[in-house]
Amino acid sequence: MRISKFAIPEIIFGRGSIVHLASCAKRVGARRVLFVSDSGLAKAGWVDRIQEILRDNGLEWVYFDAVNSNPRDHQIHEGADIYVRERADVIIAVGGGSPMDAAKGIGTIVGNGGSISDYEGANRIMRPLPPMIFLPTTAGSSSDISQFCIITDVARQVKMSIISRSLVPNVSIIDPLVLLTKSEELIISSAVDAFAHAVESYLSLLSSPFTEHQALKAIRLIARNIRPALESRSIEALENLSIASTCAGMSFSNAGLGIGHSLAHSLGGMFDVLHGLVHPILLPPVMRFNLAVSVDKLANIGRILCGPRMCSNEYLAQAGIAWLEHFFADLRVPVRLRDILPDSNCLETIAKAAVNDACTLTNPRPVSWESLLGVCQEAW
Amino acid sequence: MRISKFAIPEIIFGRGSIVHLASCAKRVGARRVLFVSDSGLAKAGWVDRIQEILRDNGLEWVYFDAVNSNPRDHQIHEGADIYVRERADVIIAVGGGSPMDAAKGIGTIVGNGGSISDYEGANRIMRPLPPMIFLPTTAGSSSDISQFCIITDVARQVKMSIISRSLVPNVSIIDPLVLLTKSEELIISSAVDAFAHAVESYLSLLSSPFTEHQALKAIRLIARNIRPALESRSIEALENLSIASTCAGMSFSNAGLGIGHSLAHSLGGMFDVLHGLVHPILLPPVMRFNLAVSVDKLANIGRILCGPRMCSNEYLAQAGIAWLEHFFADLRVPVRLRDILPDSNCLETIAKAAVNDACTLTNPRPVSWESLLGVCQEAW
Repeated sequence: MRISKFAIPEIIFGRGSIVHLASCAKRVGARRVLFVSDSGLAKAGWVDRIQEILRDNGLEWVYFDAVNSNPRDHQIHEGADIYVRERADVIIAVGGGSPMDAAKGIGTIVGNGGSISDYEGANRIMRPLPPMIFLPTTAGSSSDISQFCIITDVARQVKMSIISRSLVPNVSIIDPLVLLTKSEELIISSAVDAFAHAVESYLSLLSSPFTEHQALKAIRLIARNIRPALESRSIEALENLSIASTCAGMSFSNAGLGIGHSLAHSLGGMFDVLHGLVHPILLPPVMRFNLAVSVDKLANIGRILCGPRMCSNEYLAQAGIAWLEHFFADLRVPVRLRDILPDSNCLETIAKAAVNDACTLTNPRPVSWESLLGVCQEAW
Repeated sequence: MRISKFAIPEIIFGRGSIVHLASCAKRVGARRVLFVSDSGLAKAGWVDRIQEILRDNGLEWVYFDAVNSNPRDHQIHEGADIYVRERADVIIAVGGGSPMDAAKGIGTIVGNGGSISDYEGANRIMRPLPPMIFLPTTAGSSSDISQFCIITDVARQVKMSIISRSLVPNVSIIDPLVLLTKSEELIISSAVDAFAHAVESYLSLLSSPFTEHQALKAIRLIARNIRPALESRSIEALENLSIASTCAGMSFSNAGLGIGHSLAHSLGGMFDVLHGLVHPILLPPVMRFNLAVSVDKLANIGRILCGPRMCSNEYLAQAGIAWLEHFFADLRVPVRLRDILPDSNCLETIAKAAVNDACTLTNPRPVSWESLLGVCQEAW
């Protein structure tokens, strides 16, 4: 076994844990925080609630919400300028992957200077970031757990993967009650993103005994809880999706991902699609592509999805992928690339960009841009 | 579900990972480290090897090995005096639970002053410790992962449990190659200690979705690998025991333990017994005592130990405990209290001290000193 590294933030998990936000920020030295969030959360009332918590605890804050879904390079630099100008000392991010990734980008520039594109790839961040406390409001991106930060380079039309242990926040506060205000589309796209994190990191070349059981736990919980979460908004089901996303985050942050995410990043750089909704389209062909080298692991996934059966690992692996295709179709989300892209002319460009994505490095089966094009064509 | 907290150090795991010791220390600011270890490791050549690594990386060090197994309060203060006098900036501990717990105690005094007994119990440490890098050389105590520190109060003849998130080191470097030089007795006592951590934390009142699968993974790995590790010293089996101990550490550090450890601490305060060897004696009666409130969880343990069966949870739970009694007997270690204690007069004193141990708070079934005495009498 090779040498494995495993790093996660301190986690505070549970219903009502949002009240710990200010005390955690103070513990890492906060007096005046940069509070990064987005307008959707403000509408749902969470931004007011958090400002109340900060105020009650004697903290000052500067609110920054100029963040798109799929945050852009210029937004990062704008946030970093505000952090410095306003003499903030800690970053709090509350939201889905976008505000949290924006916060990581801002922290990177504050601590290291330069341009955010200087840090594209793995292990390019050399100096520490300011302390960061994150509170995720979707059960999907796990940016609150992970060493990953995805920022769109507007000029090049690519989503840059920035990967560094320095990007792990100090504390992740996960409060499943926040999920009660989410739309069906957001619950699905988040859960499916977490599911893809779990599957790809489980198959990854860097998976380890410290990540594999986290991934399998996430797969089991998402398969069993997404339907009840959608149908009844039961807090137990939503809580289980939160647990799953957190476990998937511990797995992929340390094991890396694969070509499903390379393609999703490349596609997301060209078209402003909801990241999670790309996985029901890409994950089954990606799993089939990796079947040649990962049959035992895919069979373990099949066992979780379909139940144990007396048959070959090859059969179980295929059965798991087929189960998944039905599962995604039942969610009534797009399951073909042609449903979300204008035409297939862009596929070659997408494949050529994806082959250079950092996630490609840990895919279990080696790839060329031509094989990635093949996966896209199968998904078309 | 209540609010759960989960905190672990950064982990670097794998054969040969010892070479990362100096770079990790430098990353947290080391120039002159206090290097805590013990004479057993010096004899096995590991102390020389580590001094060579420190020297090659331009680090100065002060070596401190005046540490017993079951480290004592006065040794902690002696180590803290040396740290301050020698102007050390980082603590490196290499060894089993004793040098690592001593290092935690030293760090506590350096960062917080006072007497080590001021910090007995949970969450009494208010100021940060100096940076700490640990390298465990047994697969058992998991002090490199945990928020626990056990120090003997010589005057009171008790082992104090000090529990605080501040006691988690910055980095744990786990190199299974170090286990190759261990004696049979040390492999058994360490593995059994890790097994007890896993079982007690799985049953604990504070177990959570982030600790339970870690505990079950540890139980499975130890049950399957202790025999091969003893018979062939196979590096795969020793590595699996290391993985198990690390997972058990992640579990008990965050979920706490139970009365098995309360009694072990109380017993270890009065008699200088090898901590791990107390568990084959205490764990089966402790599990039987908790059966009334933990039948489903004990059945899950039974399923892992005996394989799945078509029978009631009550039966499976009992079968698991019986399997364990045979397993311990086969290891040819003492399995009755009368084998290690001079006479039964001390049992009442042991029970009365154990009821106040911090580990008693998380035991699933409430206890009085009389019920602890009952457990001891069953184990006699």
